[in-house]
Amino acid sequence: MQDNKISDAVIRRLPKYYRYLSELEAAGVERISSSRMSKEMNLNASQIRRDLNCFGGFGQQGYGYQVLRLKQEIMKILGIGNAYKVIVVGAGNIGQALLKYKNFTNEGYNIVAVFDADEKMIGKNINGITVRPMSALPEFFAVNMIDIGIIAVPKPYAQKTADELVVLGVRAIWNFAPLDVEVRRGISVENVHLSDSLYVLSYHMRENDENH
Amino acid sequence: MQDNKISDAVIRRLPKYYRYLSELEAAGVERISSSRMSKEMNLNASQIRRDLNCFGGFGQQGYGYQVLRLKQEIMKILGIGNAYKVIVVGAGNIGQALLKYKNFTNEGYNIVAVFDADEKMIGKNINGITVRPMSALPEFFAVNMIDIGIIAVPKPYAQKTADELVVLGVRAIWNFAPLDVEVRRGISVENVHLSDSLYVLSYHMRENDENH
Repeated sequence: MQDNKISDAVIRRLPKYYRYLSELEAAGVERISSSRMSKEMNLNASQIRRDLNCFGGFGQQGYGYQVLRLKQEIMKILGIGNAYKVIVVGAGNIGQALLKYKNFTNEGYNIVAVFDADEKMIGKNINGITVRPMSALPEFFAVNMIDIGIIAVPKPYAQKTADELVVLGVRAIWNFAPLDVEVRRGISVENVHLSDSLYVLSYHMRENDENH
Repeated sequence: MQDNKISDAVIRRLPKYYRYLSELEAAGVERISSSRMSKEMNLNASQIRRDLNCFGGFGQQGYGYQVLRLKQEIMKILGIGNAYKVIVVGAGNIGQALLKYKNFTNEGYNIVAVFDADEKMIGKNINGITVRPMSALPEFFAVNMIDIGIIAVPKPYAQKTADELVVLGVRAIWNFAPLDVEVRRGISVENVHLSDSLYVLSYHMRENDENH
C-alpha cells in the first residue's frame, strides 16, 4: 500500500490538517492554496505539498486544494468516523473528563463502558454510562468487540491494565497514565504525556524572558 | 545564548529525555550510554548525541552520560522546578482533573486559584482551592504575579479568555479548549489537542489491520 513508509512526523501532522480543514469548511471555504495554508498553519508550503503528496496528491498546480475533499481523504487516512467501540478503565478525573467529552462520539469513537477498581465508584452513572467493576472486564469482552481501551488508572496499575486489555482482545490502547505502557506487535498504542507540553511551555517562557 | 536556534523538534523531545532519565534515576542507574538510551527510548543514537549537543554536550566519548547531571541540566533548560504560579480558568472536567493532579505541584507548577463563569460552581472547594467568579480575575491579578494561565473553558470562550489573561499579565497560556488560541509576541502558548493522539492511534489500527 502507498502509505506504508509514511514517516511518523507526517502522520502526527495530519490531525493538524484535519482540524484546520474542519475550520475552513465551517467557515464556508471551498478551495485553499498551499501558500495560504502555509501562512495560516505556520508550516512551510513545500512541506505541506510533500506531506499531502505522501497520500497521492490532492492538489492541482495553480488551483489549490478542495477543502471538503482533502478533509475527507485525511479523515479516511486517519480512520476518523469509522465507528470504533471504546472502553475506559479508570473512572477518576481523567476518565470522567473523557466520558463527558462529546466530540469523540461525533467522530465515531463511541465509549460503551467504564470500569473502576474502587468499590465506591461501582454503579455510579457518568454521562449515561454505569461504572462496572474491574472483575467484569472478561465477561464484557466475551460479548463485545472492543477496538480501543483507554487507560486512566494510576501509574502503578497501568501496565497491568494494558496487559489485561491486550489479552482480552483490544486492538489499540490510549494511555493517560504517566508512563509508556508496552504492548506486543500488532497492537497500537499512544501514550499521552500531558506534562510534556507544560515543559515546552516553560521552556518558551524562559526563552521569552531572555530575549526581552 | 547557545540555545537560541534550537529547533522545535529538539525542544519537544526534551520532555521525553526528562521522563526517561527520571525513571533511570529512580531505578538507581548512575551512568547511561547513548546506545542504551537509543534502544530504550526508541531514538537513533546519533540523534540523541546531536540533541544533547545542542545544549553543550553532556557526554564523554566512551563514558556515557551521568544520569543525574543530565536530568538536572534538562530540567534547567525546560524550566522544571522553577516555582511557577498557575491559575486555572474553567472548573469543568478538565479543569478539575488538572487541579487534582499533584505531579504538577511536585515539579514547581503551583496552581493557586481557579475561576469559573458558572454561578453554581463559585465557592466550591476543589482539592483545597475555592472556585472564584470570573469577575474576580482583575483584582486577583492586581495582587498576584501569575506565570501560567490554564484555559479549560468551552471552545467559544477560549480566545476571549486568552485575551483577558494576556491583558492581565500572564506570561504563558496552556490551552485545553479544542482550538488554537492566538496571543501576541512575547507570550508563550501551548495548545493541547488531546484528540490528535486518538487520530494517530486509529491510523495505526488501520495500518495494523492491513499488514496482518
